[in-house]
Order: sequence, then structure tokens, then C-alpha cells
Amino acid sequence: METKSAGFIEDTIRHLSRFDNAECRQLFHEENQLPSIERLREAVELLRSIIFPGYFGEPAAPHSSLHHFLGVQVEKLYGILVQQIRNVRHFDSIVNLNGLPAESAEDTARRFIETLPELRRILCTDVNAIYNGDPAARSHGEIVFCYPSIRAMTNHRAAHTLLKLGVPLIPRIISEMSHSETGIDIHPGASIGEYFCIDHGTGVVIGETCIIGNNVRIYQGVTLGAKKFELDKDGNPAKNIPRHPIIKDNVVIYSNANILGRITIGKNSVIGGSVWITRDVPSYSRMLQQKAVESSFTDGLGI
Amino acid sequence: METKSAGFIEDTIRHLSRFDNAECRQLFHEENQLPSIERLREAVELLRSIIFPGYFGEPAAPHSSLHHFLGVQVEKLYGILVQQIRNVRHFDSIVNLNGLPAESAEDTARRFIETLPELRRILCTDVNAIYNGDPAARSHGEIVFCYPSIRAMTNHRAAHTLLKLGVPLIPRIISEMSHSETGIDIHPGASIGEYFCIDHGTGVVIGETCIIGNNVRIYQGVTLGAKKFELDKDGNPAKNIPRHPIIKDNVVIYSNANILGRITIGKNSVIGGSVWITRDVPSYSRMLQQKAVESSFTDGLGI
Amino acid sequence: METKSAGFIEDTIRHLSRFDNAECRQLFHEENQLPSIERLREAVELLRSIIFPGYFGEPAAPHSSLHHFLGVQVEKLYGILVQQIRNVRHFDSIVNLNGLPAESAEDTARRFIETLPELRRILCTDVNAIYNGDPAARSHGEIVFCYPSIRAMTNHRAAHTLLKLGVPLIPRIISEMSHSETGIDIHPGASIGEYFCIDHGTGVVIGETCIIGNNVRIYQGVTLGAKKFELDKDGNPAKNIPRHPIIKDNVVIYSNANILGRITIGKNSVIGGSVWITRDVPSYSRMLQQKAVESSFTDGLGI
Amino acid sequence: METKSAGFIEDTIRHLSRFDNAECRQLFHEENQLPSIERLREAVELLRSIIFPGYFGEPAAPHSSLHHFLGVQVEKLYGILVQQIRNVRHFDSIVNLNGLPAESAEDTARRFIETLPELRRILCTDVNAIYNGDPAARSHGEIVFCYPSIRAMTNHRAAHTLLKLGVPLIPRIISEMSHSETGIDIHPGASIGEYFCIDHGTGVVIGETCIIGNNVRIYQGVTLGAKKFELDKDGNPAKNIPRHPIIKDNVVIYSNANILGRITIGKNSVIGGSVWITRDVPSYSRMLQQKAVESSFTDGLGI
Amino acid sequence: METKSAGFIEDTIRHLSRFDNAECRQLFHEENQLPSIERLREAVELLRSIIFPGYFGEPAAPHSSLHHFLGVQVEKLYGILVQQIRNVRHFDSIVNLNGLPAESAEDTARRFIETLPELRRILCTDVNAIYNGDPAARSHGEIVFCYPSIRAMTNHRAAHTLLKLGVPLIPRIISEMSHSETGIDIHPGASIGEYFCIDHGTGVVIGETCIIGNNVRIYQGVTLGAKKFELDKDGNPAKNIPRHPIIKDNVVIYSNANILGRITIGKNSVIGGSVWITRDVPSYSRMLQQKAVESSFTDGLGI
Amino acid sequence: METKSAGFIEDTIRHLSRFDNAECRQLFHEENQLPSIERLREAVELLRSIIFPGYFGEPAAPHSSLHHFLGVQVEKLYGILVQQIRNVRHFDSIVNLNGLPAESAEDTARRFIETLPELRRILCTDVNAIYNGDPAARSHGEIVFCYPSIRAMTNHRAAHTLLKLGVPLIPRIISEMSHSETGIDIHPGASIGEYFCIDHGTGVVIGETCIIGNNVRIYQGVTLGAKKFELDKDGNPAKNIPRHPIIKDNVVIYSNANILGRITIGKNSVIGGSVWITRDVPSYSRMLQQKAVESSFTDGLGI
Repeated sequence: METKSAGFIEDTIRHLSRFDNAECRQLFHEENQLPSIERLREAVELLRSIIFPGYFGEPAAPHSSLHHFLGVQVEKLYGILVQQIRNVRHFDSIVNLNGLPAESAEDTARRFIETLPELRRILCTDVNAIYNGDPAARSHGEIVFCYPSIRAMTNHRAAHTLLKLGVPLIPRIISEMSHSETGIDIHPGASIGEYFCIDHGTGVVIGETCIIGNNVRIYQGVTLGAKKFELDKDGNPAKNIPRHPIIKDNVVIYSNANILGRITIGKNSVIGGSVWITRDVPSYSRMLQQKAVESSFTDGLGI
Repeated sequence: METKSAGFIEDTIRHLSRFDNAECRQLFHEENQLPSIERLREAVELLRSIIFPGYFGEPAAPHSSLHHFLGVQVEKLYGILVQQIRNVRHFDSIVNLNGLPAESAEDTARRFIETLPELRRILCTDVNAIYNGDPAARSHGEIVFCYPSIRAMTNHRAAHTLLKLGVPLIPRIISEMSHSETGIDIHPGASIGEYFCIDHGTGVVIGETCIIGNNVRIYQGVTLGAKKFELDKDGNPAKNIPRHPIIKDNVVIYSNANILGRITIGKNSVIGGSVWITRDVPSYSRMLQQKAVESSFTDGLGI
Repeated sequence: METKSAGFIEDTIRHLSRFDNAECRQLFHEENQLPSIERLREAVELLRSIIFPGYFGEPAAPHSSLHHFLGVQVEKLYGILVQQIRNVRHFDSIVNLNGLPAESAEDTARRFIETLPELRRILCTDVNAIYNGDPAARSHGEIVFCYPSIRAMTNHRAAHTLLKLGVPLIPRIISEMSHSETGIDIHPGASIGEYFCIDHGTGVVIGETCIIGNNVRIYQGVTLGAKKFELDKDGNPAKNIPRHPIIKDNVVIYSNANILGRITIGKNSVIGGSVWITRDVPSYSRMLQQKAVESSFTDGLGI
Repeated sequence: METKSAGFIEDTIRHLSRFDNAECRQLFHEENQLPSIERLREAVELLRSIIFPGYFGEPAAPHSSLHHFLGVQVEKLYGILVQQIRNVRHFDSIVNLNGLPAESAEDTARRFIETLPELRRILCTDVNAIYNGDPAARSHGEIVFCYPSIRAMTNHRAAHTLLKLGVPLIPRIISEMSHSETGIDIHPGASIGEYFCIDHGTGVVIGETCIIGNNVRIYQGVTLGAKKFELDKDGNPAKNIPRHPIIKDNVVIYSNANILGRITIGKNSVIGGSVWITRDVPSYSRMLQQKAVESSFTDGLGI
Repeated sequence: METKSAGFIEDTIRHLSRFDNAECRQLFHEENQLPSIERLREAVELLRSIIFPGYFGEPAAPHSSLHHFLGVQVEKLYGILVQQIRNVRHFDSIVNLNGLPAESAEDTARRFIETLPELRRILCTDVNAIYNGDPAARSHGEIVFCYPSIRAMTNHRAAHTLLKLGVPLIPRIISEMSHSETGIDIHPGASIGEYFCIDHGTGVVIGETCIIGNNVRIYQGVTLGAKKFELDKDGNPAKNIPRHPIIKDNVVIYSNANILGRITIGKNSVIGGSVWITRDVPSYSRMLQQKAVESSFTDGLGI
Repeated sequence: METKSAGFIEDTIRHLSRFDNAECRQLFHEENQLPSIERLREAVELLRSIIFPGYFGEPAAPHSSLHHFLGVQVEKLYGILVQQIRNVRHFDSIVNLNGLPAESAEDTARRFIETLPELRRILCTDVNAIYNGDPAARSHGEIVFCYPSIRAMTNHRAAHTLLKLGVPLIPRIISEMSHSETGIDIHPGASIGEYFCIDHGTGVVIGETCIIGNNVRIYQGVTLGAKKFELDKDGNPAKNIPRHPIIKDNVVIYSNANILGRITIGKNSVIGGSVWITRDVPSYSRMLQQKAVESSFTDGLGI
């Protein structure tokens, strides 16, 4: 019976080892080393403990020795980034990304490290935006420690910086980490201003070419997406063409709203829940779904 | 080159150690011990194995020795709660929560333990509500073992009890655990009746001051949220003001519906998917979105 | 004081050990061994590393030794499946599933193993569908490595195969794993064609009796669900009755759309975001929400 | 180059897979499941926490809930033993052990569990023997918590009991665990009386057929071993023949002494360090090495 | 059958829970928290990485950031020590240790930290002693990284310092850690000079009141032990009486030698292997075992 | 108080960071990567599972798929070796080893892999030597699975091979692993024939330049060591000079014997326990310690 068992297993392996279907050939990653999900997860944890010391990672240190803790964490973060950027550039070379700067992994990692103070400053505005906008928030500490949107925005702002430094793949991996944890899906390419607030957040999608101003607030389930898109001359989707909305300062977008295409939502506007917007909206506008049809309920449970 | 590397790292650390911007000062948690996410996760696992013995935690024990297993688990749960409630009260003292009872951590933990039989009783009604309402559910066991809404409701009902006992922060942490795992975001303050059923659940948001009756069923993406809110005399959002819906008995709310503000959905009503409701709905009503605009599709792919 | 503490703990345990409420009796799983979440998680990781070698699991091996790696992984996967199918059949026997084939666990596991090459072939079409449809996708590798929908579809296609082989419970567990990780909730019973693409995906629900054609694309928050359902003569929901939509080839469904009941969406149709559809839609149709009500915003923040 | 690499690997594997040398055939364990080192290690930890509650395993419980803790640990220990005894009987059947009782694994495990109170009683005498004999011992707690000989004797007394119950292999595995941790090598077959004290212990060897009385004390490096042994008619060493010393009550044996063969050391005798004893020693004797040869040291460092 | 099983388990638990035998009562550690083996192991790892940076713990850091790494490690070590010294003082209070200084745990830990530079200096002499004395040692790095005696001496020198600071139990635990790993058993009370070299080391025992000079070398299996000892007026062994040897500078002691009692081995002496010494040895002496009895071997294998 | 605490910590760090004492400078390993203990431990586990398939590592596979298991394990072992040999050559370059072959890490690893069949063959003779010589051994399986000497000899024979291939440091690390686990300390340089048997083994030391024939048996505590040694012209111990014994075929050496210097023990000789041998012993000799001095014991306990 063992022999019989081995029989079908050998047959299956033979099929699976072949990869003679050219189309599926890319499902086998043979040569180079991939970025390590585990090390990148560690990098994100380090980042969080650098930005918000005492909340994450090692237990609280007194202020007087904070610089040692930060020193070690920044060194480690730098080390992981250098290593992972090297890996990912190998990976990328076989998967046709567009022209990269010739900069060394060390230089790229250094440039990222140098943005950390600015990264903390802008995340601080996000924490304040939540504190000022959510009556349920009891303290800044609770927001830093518990709110999924701060987790998502920490990942996004770091991923966006890495993307601008020309690092492939890693930004996307970092974004997907917080997507999986929070249900908030922000493409690393999206550009987002200060004092940004996502409430609850599950189901939020913010597309690659979005441009979002300052002091914007969006709720769970909001899509800032693309409609149809151009095909290039080979029939493939044209990459890097602006196809997502521009959201101006002080806009509020309620839950499950769909805003699609390269349109502009003018400043101070309010978008109601579950609307479908595919055209520009002027400043100081309010967009609401048509009133629901109400009927008295006499024909049994359900719809 | 090492020296150069150390140069920018030292510069970055110097910036990051300063916290001289008063606004960002609260991003550094210096003094007290935070509640331990890891221990609270363990507490929730213990809770689950106490409520649903044999399904979670240790493998199934025979009924005859169940009391030993429960004894050990209840002891452990009590021990973790005492310790974590102590930590969190320290934390809270620096983050301005409103007046707590002077009760000891031991007394609070004891009072929580004493509610466990009631907690199991009411979760049992939730399991039954799903069994009776979901044709895809094959058995009670499958519901206990697999359904995300039971996971979310176990966390919620425990978090709600802790909140009512005056425990800060921990209820929110417990809620965010199941939010991350299930995409169901229920604020610990929300009051929810028996036989409550969430189906699928991803994207559900139930706000802090919601009051939900018995035998209510809601689907994925439903928001029971707040609209605008009052500011107090300092311009901060006024805390603890009722601002979320009241849902009466036997209501059904379909996917992605948005119900906002301190309104009441009357008993036995049915709310259709993706509607936007900001006013009271009488009992025995059915609220549906306007019919979609239909057009024949002749102008290329997309919208 | 310890004695007092033990007092209330003993009281609580006494209550919790009794299970004298018949209704709650099923919250205690006493006798048989449950499937192991941990081992099934391992099985899914093995599956992923077999389908996409070099991307998951062990680091990349050269092609020349790929067959050894696949050999070991397929052996392990087979071993776990045999063991877990045995457990789950014991479990099931106490929880009233409908008639199972008398086939041995070995035979069922073998039949699953034999479908692996086909499983890879069809997942390859899903990868290609994303590559051709998402301008943000840089390479096939990025899609395999990062896209949550590929994770969800790998789990779904495996779970669906196991369900068709008559395996209880395990398919649901596998589906809930990716539901928790990705927010995409596909019932193992759903039948899905080739070149299927889910974009972003959080909040997607695809019900048990859905039938989806080839080359379909759906976005985050889309529900393919049931409306009301029949009760059988005992007042329980009738199981296994078709109650979810049929989606024909080449349909696109935008974010947060709700499509409910056993209706048919004709081929090549486009469904706009946040619509509510409970009737058939002809081929080559476009269904859009009514235009939003626009008003100028002069009465303070909010709605 | 990869191909070349694979070449020598394939050649090596081909050799290693063959096992065509009959003598080496037993280096491949093909069919049955071995006892799990990991589970047995867990069993020993459970045993230690049952015998010495509060010192090992879970942190200290108050006396009032001790019975729950013991209940769970005894249940778990019983469960592991049943499972591992089953495995080892399979293993043994292919490795020619002598006739086993037909008793079920459940019965054997039960009989072991029933000896636990006696096991604790006798280990208590060992702790007292150390306390009374070692001026460096500050408390009973220090001895339980720190002394390697208590660790070794706990394993030995359990292993000896299992051996007498006819369990193959597992006793030896348990003995080797403490041999590796403490350097004390006691064969499970050795019979040892009460109030037994090993000091320091590294290098102690106590052979299979030793019989040791009460109140015996031995130091590090002591060998109670065999000399030459009989061959059976096939030229193999005759198994189970008494070939190790008998040590009577109140004997003290100093460091590195070698006592070999089926001889008797009479009661109350003292054996000095590094002696070589292969004949009986009467009671109340003292055996010392010949005085060392002393010379003045004038010819450079060394010997 | 389950019931029957539970029967004997309940009986066993009842016995085991009673502790009505007064003598065994101390096998149950009920009230206070014990020192944590796990945290102390971490403390020793930190110590090793502070003394020998780059060899243990985190991977090598450049010299320029070494102070951050040391800063964090010293902070952590300090934190663990404060916590564990607190625990152990509670433990000790129930186990009758002699009068402790009233110093706070913080002060004791601080005083230990302040000895770290001296600790490194003296361990450096031990490394050099090995390098100069072992032809097999290829480099200082190999000695630090591989030699068990350096591991043992690091633990011993730290444990000895803690003992002198009045810390109970922890020194013994730290010594037993390296005893288990290396087979070298040095009581924390032993006083050992500079340039100390243990070669191989398995089976070495150095007793509590030993005093060892500078530049001493000892080999595996050497015992520096006690003979008989005084009983106090209660018939218990008198504690803290000098009962182990004094070894003067430049002595070499070969393998398995036994040196017992409060005797003195004069400086520059050489002690041969497996001798038994219970009297003083003058300086510049050589002590060798009597020549072995040689006979021609004609009477079969063995002895 | 925090400030004060930080004060002494900063002082300590300042001292510890300096390394201005040239002698201690080598306690800081700054530049290159060390071999990873963890990966080498994994390599040894792989080796064990390749040599003794089914006993270690993954659970037993049927013979029919053994070649896949071996294939994966040999690939992994090769990969780890290549990586670790690279690391160690960097390490070595800063620690003055003598001239290495210019061979690549790949070639060295390949040459090691090619010796695996021979490694198994010779270890098989060791297993047989134990089986034939130990009446307590019940089966070949028990020996492979439980006997520390097989563990030690597996490490030694692999370490010896690596040493002969010119690999620095790693052989010593591998030897120290089994030294710590078994108390058996064999220098990788020692040359050992077939059918080698160590019984019990704790405290055995076999020096770097030993040459041991076939069919030799030694017991616990035996030292095959060096006496004094030559100094080179710089006053350092001369490296690589033969200074350990030669043991001819069929010799038996009993427990705790000390055999020192470049002497020869002639074939078939038997060496008794605790003897001190520093001169050649002819073939067919028996060497025994002088008879112990026996006295009647009338003067109180002890010696």
C-alpha cells in the first residue's frame, strides 16, 4: 500500500516539477532571494518602537536612557533595510521594474533613516486629528496603542517614503501587512497630507495615484479607486497613469462611499455614505444618496 | 564609512530623543507599565476555553475532570486580570480618564469572574441565533469553532462587562483584537441584546453608544455610526453623549447599510443594503435603496 | 483572603461545569478530537509552497532539486490530510452532517493530492487575470507574493475541492483562515471559473451556492449573498437550496455592490458600486446607483 | 554549476537511500512511530510539577486551588503516558524485547499514576538526606530548585517504576534526559533505597543491576559498574545477569572511586576517592588509595 | 471507563494535595514568587554579551555604536536583576537564610553593575591563561566563543560577586546553569584568583570555601572538596565553616585528582591525576599516584 | 532617582566601551560575522537525520520516498555548510590561522557531502561495537536513539572530516555541542578507528593528536591527554606537536584512567580504572592501580 501511495505521489510530483507550461513558469521563483517577510515585520516593529517609544517593543525606558534604546533600534532598522533592499533589487532585476537609481542599498537605507524625525512629526498630526475628531478616544496614548488607523498610517507613510526612494516590492509588502491587520488598504504610491484621520477603517481602499490634502477624514469602507483604464499599445494596462481621485483639504467622506477615477473632491466638502461618485465635486458641497424607498412591512420576513 | 554611517545615525537619534515639540510629547510613553497585549491575548484564549470547553485551548477533557480544567483556567484568568487591571490603572492615571471606583483590582477581577456563567448563557443565544438563521451552518460545533462573529461577540461581551466595571483601556484592546481578526469593530460601550447575529461581518462597525435589542441580525459592512457631534466649551468633541442608533428587537440590516446618529430603527424593520439612514424608521418598515439606473452596455469596458 | 478568593472561584466553576441547560450543552465539546487549526495552517502553507515553489516556505531551491522539495512537501501534506480527515470525521459524526461517502481518509487525501497540478493551472489563470487587469501590478512575482486575493483564492480552490470530496468542517476552517487574513469571505461551496480576479478584496462575501463564470472581476466590499430563505417543515432554514447569484462570464462588479438571491447577472455586464440588485440583469448591461443629491454646504461641518 | 552541484548530491542520495548493507539496515527506522522526545520531556516536567508543586511548571497556586492544578497535570501526564506507551510498544515489537505483559497502555499508565504519592514520599527522603549532609545547602527549597541530584533522582525513580511496569525504551530515554542535564548516569534498572544522596554528581555511573541500600551517599565521578561479562552461546553478551555492585546501608563513596562487578560493599563502610575495588568490602571498613609519591619539584613545569 | 479513569486520578490527587506529612511539607512552594530561571538565563546571556561584545547576543556592531548596544544591555541587565533580587528576597524569607543587609534591590543591582568593568578585566586574564597554556587553542576568539571553562568562569565570577553582595539563591542558580552546560561545578562561594585555567573541565568540583590563588591550572574531574564536617549542637551540619582546600599560586592539578579538606597545596606544586590528597602539600612539590601494577594479559578479555 | 541610576549606568558603559586595554581588545569581536551556533546546530540535526533516517528529525517516511527526504536534507545541509564556511573564513582571517587551501566554500562543502556514505558506514560499526559490548543494550534502535556516545561520535566524525578539509573553528563548535550534551570531549583533530565504543562517557577527554585503532573501548572519565609541552621560541606553546597517546587495536580502558603524553598502549591491553599512565604499555598487558589500603572503621563517620 505504501508503494501505491508513493505511486500517485510520484506522478503528482512529476507533473508539478515540470513547469512546461510557459504561462505558469513564473509561479516558480527559482533564482534569487526574496525579501524576508519575517525581517520586514521586524523592521516595522522597530519603526513603531522608534516613532512611539515605550508603547511598542521593549518596555518603557526612562527618558535618560532613551537615546541608547533609540540608538540600538535605529542601528538594527538600518541593518535590516540594507539587507532587504539588496535582496529585493536582485528579485526585481528578474521581474522588469522600471529604471532604478544606481544608489547603493546603504545610501537608500541611510536616506530613509534620515526621514524618521519627519515621519514622527507627521504621524503626530494624525494622532491629533483622531483625538480631536473622535469622541470615543480617551487619550493620545489609547490612540497610539489601539487605533488601527495609526498602525496603517505608520506603515503607509514609511512605505511611501521607501517607494519614493526607488525601493521595489518592499513598500507593497509593508502595506499589505497593515492591510491584513487592519483591513485598510493604502497603496504605497498614494500621497496623503497632514492630520489625516481614518475612523474604524475596515474596507478602506486608497489607490496608487490618489492625492489627499490636509485634515481629511474618511470612514470605513470608503473606496478611492479607479474606473476603467487605458491599455498601452501591447494591450496591457498602462502603468503609472493618474487614475485615482484628488481629495482637497478638510473633506469628510462617510462610510462605504465610492469615489472613482481622476476626479477632484473640492475642499471642505462632505460625501455621504454609500454614494457613487465619478465626477468632480465642487468645494463646500454635500453629496448624499437619494432617500431610501420606505414601505410598510407586511409580507413576511426579509426582502 | 562606518564612522559616516554612525554620523547620520547619531544625528537622527539626537532628534528623536528630544521630544521638544510639546504636541508630540505624548508619543513617548515613559513612566508606567502598559497592559501587556500578550497577556491579554492569553486571557481572551482562556476565556474562550472556559466558555466553550473542548473547542479551544487544551484538547478535550472528559466531563468527569472538566471541573479541574475549568478550575485552573479560571484561576489563571483571574490572575492575569488582577495584574493587568493594576497596570492599566497606572497607565490611566497619566492619561486623564474620568473618575474610577476605588475598588481594588482583585475585587474588579472577582466581579468579572462571577459573570462568566451569564456570559456563557448569553453567548449560547448568539450561537443559536446563527444556527437558526444561516442555512450554511451545519452544526453548533461548526459555529463555535469557525464563525468570526462568535469570536467577535465573545470579545465584545467580555469587554463590555469590563467597561461597566470601570476598567480603562483593556476593553478597547480586547475589542481591537477581534476587530483585527474578524474585521468586526464593536466599541466596548455598545449595549447588545440576546440572540444577536452578525453574518460574515467584515466591515461591521457598531459605535460606542449603540443600544441593540434582542434577536437582531446584521450583515457585513453595516455601519451603526455617528454623524456630526457636539463640541464642548473647549472645542473638543463632547465625550459620552449618545450619538449612535438604537436598534429595536427583530430588526434585520443588510450589507453595507449606513445608519447614523441617535435615531431609532423600530422593531421588526428590515433595512436594505447600502442605504443611508439618518432619521428614525418606524417599526415594521422596509427601507430600500432607489432602483439602480440600467443601461445597455455598448461603449467599451468599464464605467 | 486566598480562601475567599477560592470561594467565588469554586462557585463559578461549579456553575460552569454543570452544563445542565440542554440548549448550551453543545458549547462543550467532550468526546472526539477536533481538527487541529495548527496542523491545517501548516497544510495550507505546504500547499502554497507546492503551488508557488520558491515564493513560500523553504527558500528557493534550484530547479534540479525541485522534485525532492516537492516530494517531501507533498508527502507531508498527504500525511496531515489523512490525519485531519480522520479527526474531522469523528467530529462530524456527533454533529449530524449529511451522508458521507464511505471512502477512507487515505483515499480522500490521495484524490486531493492528484488535483494539485490542476489546482496550480487554474490559480495561474487567476494570477494572469490580475496582471492583465491591475495597472499597479508590477510583475507576476509581486502578485503571487503580495496580493491577498491570490491567498484567498488558493485557500478557496483547495477548500472547494475538499468539500466536493465530502470532507466536512475542514473546508470551512481553511476558508476562515484566509477570511481572517484578507477580509475576503468565500464559502467553500461557491463555484468559481477561471481567470477570476478580486481587487483589494476586504469585505467581499461570496455565498455558498454562487456560480461564477470565467474572467469575472469583483472589487472590495461586494456581496454575492442570499435574501430571505425557505424554512423547512421543522421551521429550520432549509439547507442546500440555491439562494445565491449566478454571475456569467466577463462581468465586472464595483466596490460595495450588493447582489442578493438566486438571480443571474448576464455576461459582460458591469455593476456599479454600492448598488442593490435583487433581480436578474441582462447581458451587456450597466447598473448604476441613482445620482447623488448635491447641495451646497453652508450649515456647519457634518451631515 | 547548479547542475554539477545537483550531480554530486544525487549521487550521494543514491548511496544513502540504498541501505543494501544488511548490517547498517537498522540505522533506518522505517515503519513505526518512535516515542516523542518532546512529549516525554513534557511528561517529566509535569511529573516534577506534581511532585514539587510551586517549584516547577506553572507559578505558585494557593493551597486552596492546588487540587485543580494537580488534577489537570495528572490528567495530562496520564494522557501523554498512554500515548507514548502505545508508540513504544510498536517500536519495541520490531526490536526484539523480551516478553511484555499483555496489559493495555491505559492500565500501565494508571498503575504509574497510582505510585505518584509514594514517589513523592521517597524523593522527600532524598531531599532530607541532602539537607542533612551538605553544609552548603541553605534550605529544602534550594535543594528542590537547584540540586542536580534531585533532578536525576526524580527521573530515575520514575524511570525505574516504568521499567518495572514493563515499559520498554521510555525509561532509558528519561534517564538519558537527566544524564545529559546533570552528568549523572543511572540505569533505570538500578534499585536504590531511601535517603539517597548524590553530591555534585557529574560523572556518576550506576549500572543496571546495582542494588543500593538506604542512606547511601556518593560523590561525583563514582562508578558502580561491571567488569567483564559472560557471553551467551551465540557469542553475544548475556543480558540481565547481575554484574554490578551491591551497596549496603550507610555507605559513603568519595569522588571518582571505581567499584566494579557483582561485589558487596558492607554497611557503614567508607570508600575513598579514586580507588579501584573489584572485591567485596566488609562492613565498617575504610578503603583508601595508597599514599601518593611525593617529590620535590625542581625539573621544570609539568610531570 | 472514563469514570473509572477519573476515579484513580481523583484518588491520586487527593493524596497529592494533602501534604499532611510534615516532613514533605516543604516540597510544596506555596506563597511567594520564585526567581525566574528564564529571566536569569536571559541575564546571563546579557552579561556574556556585555563582557564579550560581538561574540554573543546581537550580531556584531561597529565600535562607533557599541556604547548604545552596551547601554541597552546594561539597562536590561539592571532591570532583570532588580526584579529577580526582589523575588528571591521574598523566597528567602520563608527559607531561613542568615541576616541580609537591608539594602534595596536597586542598590544591590547597581553595585553589581558597577563591577562589570572589573569582571571583564579578570575574565580577560582567564582567556589569556588558556591561550598561553593550551597548544590546541588557535586564537583568543576561539577561546571566548567555544571553551566551556570561559562560560563556567563567567557565571562563577558573576555569581561570586552577587553572593558577596548578599543575594541569596540566585548565585546558586547561575552556577548550576553552567554546571549543567559544562559539567564544571563551582560553588559561588569559592574565591578564585586571576589567570585561572580549567581545561576540558567535565567533572570539576570546586567547593564553597575554596581559596584559589593566581595562575592556577586544573584539569577535568578534579575535586577540591570537603571531607567529613562538624555537626552543630542540633546535629545539623555546621554551615559556613572552612572545609575546602587552599590552592596557592601557579599550582597545576591533573585530571581526576581528589583534594579534600581544609588543606593547603603550596605554590608551584604539581598534583598528578587520580591522586587522593587529604594533607597539606609543600610548595614546589610533585604528588604522583603509586605506579600501576603491570601484568601480562593471558586470561581472556577483561579484568 | 532615575537620573542617578542613569549616572552609574553611563559610567559603566563608558568604561565598557573603551577597550583601551590592549590585552582585552580581543574580547570585542567587531568586524566579521561569526559562524551561527543556531545554524550549525541545525546542520548537526540534519546530519543525524541523514545518517539515521527515521530516528531523528522528521517522523519516519516509507522507504519508497526516502530519497526525497534525503534529497531535501542533503540540499539543506549543503546550503548551511557553504554559508557557514564562508562566515568562518572571514572570522579566521582576523585570528591568524595557518595557511588554508584556496578552495571555495562550495567545493569544501561538496567534498564533505561526498563523505556522507562513508560516515554512515563507520558510525554503523560504532553502533555494532556497543551492541556487542553492552549487555544493557536491548536493540540497535535503542543505541541509535538513546546512547550519548553515538551522539558524540556522530559529531566527532563529522568534525574530524571538516577539520581535514581545512575548515577552521566549525569543527571545534560541533565538538563542543556534543561535549555539552554528553560530557564527552573529543578534539576534532583526534583520529579514531572503526568499532569504537565509549560507554556512559561523561568526563571522557580525547586530545587533539590522539591516534586510536580499531575496536577500542573506553569508559567514563578516561583522559587521553597531554603532559607538559614544548614552548616555541616566543615562549608560546608549540602548536601541532604530537603530544597525546596512541591507542592500538582492541584496547579496553576502564573508568577515570589517566593516560598522558605521546605514549603507546599496545594492542589488546587492558587499563584499569583511575590509573596514571605516562609511559608506553606493551601489547597484551594489564595495568591496575595498587590495592587500596583497607582499615576497619571505628573512628566516626568520614575519612
